[in-house]
Amino acid sequence: MTRHIGIFLFDGVEELDAVGPWEVLSHWTKRFPEDGFGVSTVSKDGKHVLASKGLTLGAHHSFADAPHYDVFLHPGGPGTRILMRDTGHLDWVQRQRVKTPLMTSVCSGALVYAAAGLLENRPATTYWNDVALLAELDPTISLRTQDRYVDDGDLITSAGVSAGIDMTLHLVRRLAGPDRAREVRRGIQYDPEPPV
Amino acid sequence: MTRHIGIFLFDGVEELDAVGPWEVLSHWTKRFPEDGFGVSTVSKDGKHVLASKGLTLGAHHSFADAPHYDVFLHPGGPGTRILMRDTGHLDWVQRQRVKTPLMTSVCSGALVYAAAGLLENRPATTYWNDVALLAELDPTISLRTQDRYVDDGDLITSAGVSAGIDMTLHLVRRLAGPDRAREVRRGIQYDPEPPV
Repeated sequence: MTRHIGIFLFDGVEELDAVGPWEVLSHWTKRFPEDGFGVSTVSKDGKHVLASKGLTLGAHHSFADAPHYDVFLHPGGPGTRILMRDTGHLDWVQRQRVKTPLMTSVCSGALVYAAAGLLENRPATTYWNDVALLAELDPTISLRTQDRYVDDGDLITSAGVSAGIDMTLHLVRRLAGPDRAREVRRGIQYDPEPPV
Repeated sequence: MTRHIGIFLFDGVEELDAVGPWEVLSHWTKRFPEDGFGVSTVSKDGKHVLASKGLTLGAHHSFADAPHYDVFLHPGGPGTRILMRDTGHLDWVQRQRVKTPLMTSVCSGALVYAAAGLLENRPATTYWNDVALLAELDPTISLRTQDRYVDDGDLITSAGVSAGIDMTLHLVRRLAGPDRAREVRRGIQYDPEPPV
């Protein structure tokens, strides 16, 4: 029986917030189906979304036909500025929280979680430029701005954009062990050498 | 007058090969339009493509309506196994080479360049698992398998998947200077910490 990981897509999602984790998780689940996980994307209506920088990304599911998720990932991007004030979306996130063992976010996805009350009295991180806003949305959050990601059990938040790659490699380690995570890292040749 | 950077999309393109560079380059060009560059995606017929792991990615242009490119980027992915034997595509790549000042590749995109004769007697790199095939396609290539990317003037090749992020940060540095590249790096919070 496959356990499902869902990556949420929305207009204004930051491209790498979603596709970095997608690459890590889909590489893992397609190459090692014996681990019993699958990953797919989901948008509210199941249609394509127009991401932050103008790239169109396709969704596999709508909210209505989405599978039950064992892990849910909420990326960030400029679109979160709307979602964090969208009571319909916040209600949906709260309902996901109740039934999903592990909720994760990348970048400003944490703003939406904070607005939905998911981060109350929890340690968390976000994109460096959104730290003040996160604290404003929920002053009870214990900010960990130096961390690449913060694993707090049933909740993992990560820093900005590219940090989603590190967070999801950690997720593979947590769900399938360090050897598997190293195989995925090798598979995407993730030996980063920022040239500047 | 805007100078154009084109990212090629095709069925079986590896998602992060294309979207890592897209994030770097679109972040740069949208935030700093004064630098005079723009980036867009292009597929043969201008339609969406189904990428390697099952994500749909949208193209902004077809070959027929594409702008003149100053920089062209050929990603890799399983789809290159077909493209490297597709004489129509190889002809198109050769015509691009003639009119494009800077041709770049990520991952197994180098296999297509090799098959089109672009790498003859040049230093180059590719995905770690494709090194033997690259050497077989063109034994005159000087392989640089330890390099994250190889800048040979009018041609830049890079290692696998995630290496496209490093290569395009180098590209921003080359086209707009190190300070700009550092701003883009900060913008995508690219302070990688692989957890395994």
